[in-house]
Amino acid sequence: MSIIFQKIALIGVGLIGSSICQAVRLKNLAAHISVATRRAQTLDEARSISIADEYFLSGAEAVKDADLVILCAPVGAFEAIMKEISPHLKAGAILSDVGSVKGHVDKVVGPLVPAGVHLVPGHPMAGTEHSGPLAGFPSLFEGRWCILTPRADVARAAVDKLAAFWEALGSQVELMDACHHDLVVAITSHVPHLVAYNIVGTADDMESVSKSEVIKFSAGGFRDFTRIAASDPIMWRDVFLTNREAVLEMLGRFLEDLSVLQRAVRVGDGDALEDLFTRTREIRRSIIDAGQETDVVDFGRDHKPTPK
Amino acid sequence: MSIIFQKIALIGVGLIGSSICQAVRLKNLAAHISVATRRAQTLDEARSISIADEYFLSGAEAVKDADLVILCAPVGAFEAIMKEISPHLKAGAILSDVGSVKGHVDKVVGPLVPAGVHLVPGHPMAGTEHSGPLAGFPSLFEGRWCILTPRADVARAAVDKLAAFWEALGSQVELMDACHHDLVVAITSHVPHLVAYNIVGTADDMESVSKSEVIKFSAGGFRDFTRIAASDPIMWRDVFLTNREAVLEMLGRFLEDLSVLQRAVRVGDGDALEDLFTRTREIRRSIIDAGQETDVVDFGRDHKPTPK
Repeated sequence: MSIIFQKIALIGVGLIGSSICQAVRLKNLAAHISVATRRAQTLDEARSISIADEYFLSGAEAVKDADLVILCAPVGAFEAIMKEISPHLKAGAILSDVGSVKGHVDKVVGPLVPAGVHLVPGHPMAGTEHSGPLAGFPSLFEGRWCILTPRADVARAAVDKLAAFWEALGSQVELMDACHHDLVVAITSHVPHLVAYNIVGTADDMESVSKSEVIKFSAGGFRDFTRIAASDPIMWRDVFLTNREAVLEMLGRFLEDLSVLQRAVRVGDGDALEDLFTRTREIRRSIIDAGQETDVVDFGRDHKPTPK
Repeated sequence: MSIIFQKIALIGVGLIGSSICQAVRLKNLAAHISVATRRAQTLDEARSISIADEYFLSGAEAVKDADLVILCAPVGAFEAIMKEISPHLKAGAILSDVGSVKGHVDKVVGPLVPAGVHLVPGHPMAGTEHSGPLAGFPSLFEGRWCILTPRADVARAAVDKLAAFWEALGSQVELMDACHHDLVVAITSHVPHLVAYNIVGTADDMESVSKSEVIKFSAGGFRDFTRIAASDPIMWRDVFLTNREAVLEMLGRFLEDLSVLQRAVRVGDGDALEDLFTRTREIRRSIIDAGQETDVVDFGRDHKPTPK
């Protein structure tokens, strides 16, 4: 593919930032990649796998002359980052991010964007339970969706250019209002994570069932939840601190439905249970058909002998 | 390996029954396999892949002369099956099952076991989200745990023989009190399934977020839950109807913990969130170290381009 941006700068080089760098290099989408991160150890890890051309501990230096700047840090750090880099952004540059909560980006990043810089917030719906630069890989975004949430007054050319960039990374792009985005991810991502963290915590706290029993017999379903409950703690803390209203609304609905289900168990309403369990079976099929899930049994987990 | 039983009979040939047959044949653990199931279509499917030597629609015929009889139907059907097969069980035979709720087996199967027949209830902690004879495969039990819950007055030789059988199928065997088993699986399997069914139902019912959005953006975490929410509806209905007390107790703890977490989100208690999210990360590592989970990122899901 051909170069879309002369220079891109990433602030934050965790799983997502590192994967962007690797994909950009592989596909030759930028002439120059500059990265910055706050911790020296993280920067060393990024340097050890040569994901960029320049490495900085200061965002202000990294963004100099960049045509595209992407904030790839946890959303809780965005305000501080903006205060640092804002005076150094090039006129005409596109400023984006990969944060999971878009209303918050409007709120804290929006007011700090200099005139002449185009803010196009983004959210690639991709990731794994691992974190840090070494966890990144260039095909992370292939076949996944990237949601962009520009405000109505943002230059259309900037939105189109960023959309072309994500498509070049292998993603499908959808434009959405920031507020609606935050509702969509509350139910498809944030509440599932909260529930997974919670059930793993509950099992960990049990006295009547030992931790070693929970571990040994986790193949009955529990282990599935531990994958997303192993996600980056800081990133997820920030998600729940910044998408509070949408998370609480969706969690309220989840709890309402769970009360109905709890009652069906208590009174032994087999028909209600069977109806729900039959209906939920179909949605997985739809997700597989949409290319958003692997079409192999048990996620393709290896069913060969496991060493003891 | 060498033959452990001259004739085994399975009542029910779904995922688990079919997998047992296939493993027994592959490892030559029985001279003769007889299977029975209630529905002609299921029996035809079993026959189409030649998993047994004889196929019956009647359990009474299948169990004739069998040294080992395993009930592999949903637990809700056990009482009716026992009424049918009980008079036909061979003296000295071992009677077992693969049901997920062991207190219920004691309660409904126990009183119907003829004198001279050894009841050794069992529960292989293995499975996939698929069901039916065609979903079975012989390595399903390799490296997984099988829990046996014999009462104290059952002949030790019968327990040892059944344990040897499960070990030959590739499993590790643990003996446990039926009541404790039901608590262990309530937290490691039943409540996780209930929560997964519930969140998939909640997402499916949303008006503010469309079903197509839920499907498109499911890679953010939601899709993980859809796997176990695609499990067999009848089997799981019976689990919740027969393990009510333990499920409601564990669900109560889950809900208590979730209230605490909900409050942490509401008041913006970042420290509490980060503490939990850090603690839960470790338990996945323990499960992988115990050989009960795949040690590859994102369950080993394919991260190559997905066709649109």
